[in-house]
Amino acid sequence: MEKKKVTERQSPKIFLSGSIRGGRQLLETYRFMYAALEEAGAEVLSWHVADPDLEENESKMTEQDIYDRDMGLLAKSDALIAEVTVPSTGVGYEICRALDRKIPVLCLHRPDAVVSAMVLGNPYPSLDIRAYSNESVLNEIIIKFVRAL
Amino acid sequence: MEKKKVTERQSPKIFLSGSIRGGRQLLETYRFMYAALEEAGAEVLSWHVADPDLEENESKMTEQDIYDRDMGLLAKSDALIAEVTVPSTGVGYEICRALDRKIPVLCLHRPDAVVSAMVLGNPYPSLDIRAYSNESVLNEIIIKFVRAL
Repeated sequence: MEKKKVTERQSPKIFLSGSIRGGRQLLETYRFMYAALEEAGAEVLSWHVADPDLEENESKMTEQDIYDRDMGLLAKSDALIAEVTVPSTGVGYEICRALDRKIPVLCLHRPDAVVSAMVLGNPYPSLDIRAYSNESVLNEIIIKFVRAL
Repeated sequence: MEKKKVTERQSPKIFLSGSIRGGRQLLETYRFMYAALEEAGAEVLSWHVADPDLEENESKMTEQDIYDRDMGLLAKSDALIAEVTVPSTGVGYEICRALDRKIPVLCLHRPDAVVSAMVLGNPYPSLDIRAYSNESVLNEIIIKFVRAL
């Protein structure tokens, strides 16, 4: 019943935020999140975050092209999901811009991550923070988040 | 003459932003920037960024205490200077909040740093980005920035 509701309505548009120049060590997690979001009925606008060829593709763009693309996609998004385990200046910037837009923001991290106090101590009611210990838990959190949008 | 002008007027209040949980490898640079700012006639409100005992002191605070302290200091600041060489979610967040406040933002980095496109491609006119190759150049950039406030 719940699933039917998701497929019938328009897909919520998600900005997936993860470290790019801060380090791609969690690329496989971003790929998993992308697939879980699409499977849950969402449309990931910033699919490039999960693209293994991202650096090569972006090397053909100017810095402002990249900024404009990302801010343009964020402006069209219904929610932002950030993986905050790997410290990233861009992710912090995007979280702030999403809170400015008053859209729901979900920050996910591994249990042993040292997460910024600008995230963990952030009192915005539209921000939620969850730790995940494995892909199954991560998938469950993502499904619940998408269904609640 | 220029120096006299600086000492006569009220000290500009600066939010110094640098990586904390993202890694303290540039602590000595943050300490140098703090000293250069104070020497240039500015008052650094977020002096804790340059404090070697920061982690120990902050371990006694709640996450929201840290967030509230930092956002409170940012709200009182006339400008933000961020060292963006070390990727940091908190620094990205603080840059965005400072741009929201329309105060001057100066991002500084080592020449070989891989800096976020959310900084390098950012079109806000109140944002300036400069690379520095050594402490002498860094000091010079800081003095010019403080004098222009």
